[in-house]
Amino acid sequence: MVVELISVGTEILLGNIVNTNAAYLAEQCAGLGLSCYYQSVVGDNAERLQGTLQMALERSDIVILGGGLGPTQDDLTKEVTAKVLGLKLVEDGHSRERIKEYMETRGLDVTENNWKQALAPEGAIIIDNENGTAPGMIIEKDGKHVILLPGPPGEMRPMFEKSIFPYLSELQPGVIYSKTVKVCGVGESIAETMIKDMIAAQSNPTIATYAKTGEVHLRVTAKAESEKEARKLVKPVVKELKGRFGNSIYTTDTEVTLEKSVVDLLTANGLTVSTAESCTGGLLSARLINVPGASEVFKAGYVSYSNKTKRKLFGVKRNSLEKYGAVSEVVAKEMAKGAAILSKADVVVSVTGIAGPDGGSEEKPVGLVYIGCQVRGESVVKEYHFKGNRNKIREASVSAALGLMRECILQYCSNVMFAE
Amino acid sequence: MVVELISVGTEILLGNIVNTNAAYLAEQCAGLGLSCYYQSVVGDNAERLQGTLQMALERSDIVILGGGLGPTQDDLTKEVTAKVLGLKLVEDGHSRERIKEYMETRGLDVTENNWKQALAPEGAIIIDNENGTAPGMIIEKDGKHVILLPGPPGEMRPMFEKSIFPYLSELQPGVIYSKTVKVCGVGESIAETMIKDMIAAQSNPTIATYAKTGEVHLRVTAKAESEKEARKLVKPVVKELKGRFGNSIYTTDTEVTLEKSVVDLLTANGLTVSTAESCTGGLLSARLINVPGASEVFKAGYVSYSNKTKRKLFGVKRNSLEKYGAVSEVVAKEMAKGAAILSKADVVVSVTGIAGPDGGSEEKPVGLVYIGCQVRGESVVKEYHFKGNRNKIREASVSAALGLMRECILQYCSNVMFAE
Repeated sequence: MVVELISVGTEILLGNIVNTNAAYLAEQCAGLGLSCYYQSVVGDNAERLQGTLQMALERSDIVILGGGLGPTQDDLTKEVTAKVLGLKLVEDGHSRERIKEYMETRGLDVTENNWKQALAPEGAIIIDNENGTAPGMIIEKDGKHVILLPGPPGEMRPMFEKSIFPYLSELQPGVIYSKTVKVCGVGESIAETMIKDMIAAQSNPTIATYAKTGEVHLRVTAKAESEKEARKLVKPVVKELKGRFGNSIYTTDTEVTLEKSVVDLLTANGLTVSTAESCTGGLLSARLINVPGASEVFKAGYVSYSNKTKRKLFGVKRNSLEKYGAVSEVVAKEMAKGAAILSKADVVVSVTGIAGPDGGSEEKPVGLVYIGCQVRGESVVKEYHFKGNRNKIREASVSAALGLMRECILQYCSNVMFAE
Repeated sequence: MVVELISVGTEILLGNIVNTNAAYLAEQCAGLGLSCYYQSVVGDNAERLQGTLQMALERSDIVILGGGLGPTQDDLTKEVTAKVLGLKLVEDGHSRERIKEYMETRGLDVTENNWKQALAPEGAIIIDNENGTAPGMIIEKDGKHVILLPGPPGEMRPMFEKSIFPYLSELQPGVIYSKTVKVCGVGESIAETMIKDMIAAQSNPTIATYAKTGEVHLRVTAKAESEKEARKLVKPVVKELKGRFGNSIYTTDTEVTLEKSVVDLLTANGLTVSTAESCTGGLLSARLINVPGASEVFKAGYVSYSNKTKRKLFGVKRNSLEKYGAVSEVVAKEMAKGAAILSKADVVVSVTGIAGPDGGSEEKPVGLVYIGCQVRGESVVKEYHFKGNRNKIREASVSAALGLMRECILQYCSNVMFAE
């Protein structure tokens, strides 16, 4: 089946936001085996939206519209869709209740325009929005499927995963099965080179690589008549990838993130963790704590940005700061040591670096980061050079810190096993 | 004049890459005062590209095509454009020379398909590519302007800045000027209701609202013959907005984020800050530290996730935890107090809440968050109810914490002024 994506929003036409929704939806649809030949963007304009939707319905089986479901006068997606499909807009009582509840629990007044969000083309399947007030909708007419989704990614993605993905899966005959092999600490082009022969020879399953900050995901996708058959096609390819990437693979489970794999490792080995951050400013602790169940292993997080706090909080020596500077191997080590004493955690990670845009020098350029990891007294410090803007450097540092933790914990566990 | 963007590339349709080029070009065109009503994406398919380009030429004055200028058989943009415009493809001697030179200086062999990149529709204005082998092109025909740009952002952007921007500036008379009024602590639909009459009456300048987590941005845009005139049109509208939103406006500077406005307030008043986080896990400190210059005011960040650490780190009373629970007004207050004693900061913010998905109860549902703010001994704790997934609740908490800090610091400063 052929799917087409229409993004509705003047803010995209004005370049105020990057259309990440289209990329997300396109990737999901491709994963489902749906063909996508066109994506388009139109503004909050009834006539132009109408023309675009009509054309999409002529050439595609499924049309996914994102955005324009808000409470304001600008938001026209439902109105135009109803018109194009020749359906009336009627109030959905259930949605009205949900909107009321949503606003009330937040202590907000329901304004008149909020009720607009409870309207739907008659006969539409209503999809509850668990993260906002605009419900999603599926409308089936004359063999076509029109899907309306809210614009904010934090509302659209959970809704797509929970309700739209299963709906589309049923429309598309045959089964698509994917397994993602997640690798950390290996660059994308190196990873691609390592599997160049496999990619050249691929047909079914296919292998696609996706670069994430500090990670590469290798997705193996097979199409078959049953899930069992598809799994059978995927299995030997995943095995081959495991042979090639070995310990760099942290999971083959879609749900498991790098931080979850670290928290799982800590839990499994009865270890606790603390963080000592400078340039990452709390992003590392935030990623660890975002893992449900992290409270069992997470002792404390400390953020020290100034030299003074590094001395007072972690007991970093004045001499070390003066001789080597705050961004140095020695200070990274002392930060980890100090945080270990403070919190009595088994594993402590420290991050100190220059995220830019200022503060770099020829000797210590922007992007230079030291990450220390101490596991029960044994410590390792590594030097990294990251490229990109402030945010990118901070994120790359967090991913590298998680990768280093994983490495050090695995090393510690294998030493312990060996000693036993 | 009306501009339309067409992105050519199967990798965008598959969701393998995010279409950042479209956002960049859209923003540049908007800045030039060009109207953009449509953006579209088509794959590397001659027939579909032809249809898309023909339609774009019917409804727009300027069509910018990005991608599909590479050396492979898949790359069809030039071929299709020449066909649609009824022009022959001819070899451009200058481009041929440049390609040869580019490849030679990099020690690369020129393969037969590289010469394809020297072809251009006859009469095209050739734009040198200083970062790759595919030249850009401008083709003028029957009052329409077709611009072909290479796909890689590192080639496209410098080419656009150097050659296309000046070309478009000459096509488009007049100037666009915008000012953004940023509001925190007011929901989008309430904000819209507050300025409904202004939006209804708008023509030039226009007012557009953009919702961010915990914030609303109101952008006022005017078009005039000179920047001076455009500014003059914008000024009274911004003044009116200031009157309506008062203290909820934290800035009218595009570059200033909520966290920067807080750091600026701290700096201006000689105050230092520390954070005591539970459910946000370091996200609040990370946002503050992301402001260049935050090191001057940021003393320390503490993350305590477990009750035990709350007691040990902040001296939260065992009795308070048992009687009221970790997510309570009392504990938020004690966390702030403890962090203030530990770090000796003037301003301390604490966050404790239930980010979910687990841990909620009827009495204390997921999304319940207490935020405390202590300014030189005086403390305030507020209760919030956020909806959404774990990430959304955490982000909303951080924005609310920044908003509360701003409020408390402003209050403190006005009290001090009053006392003086």
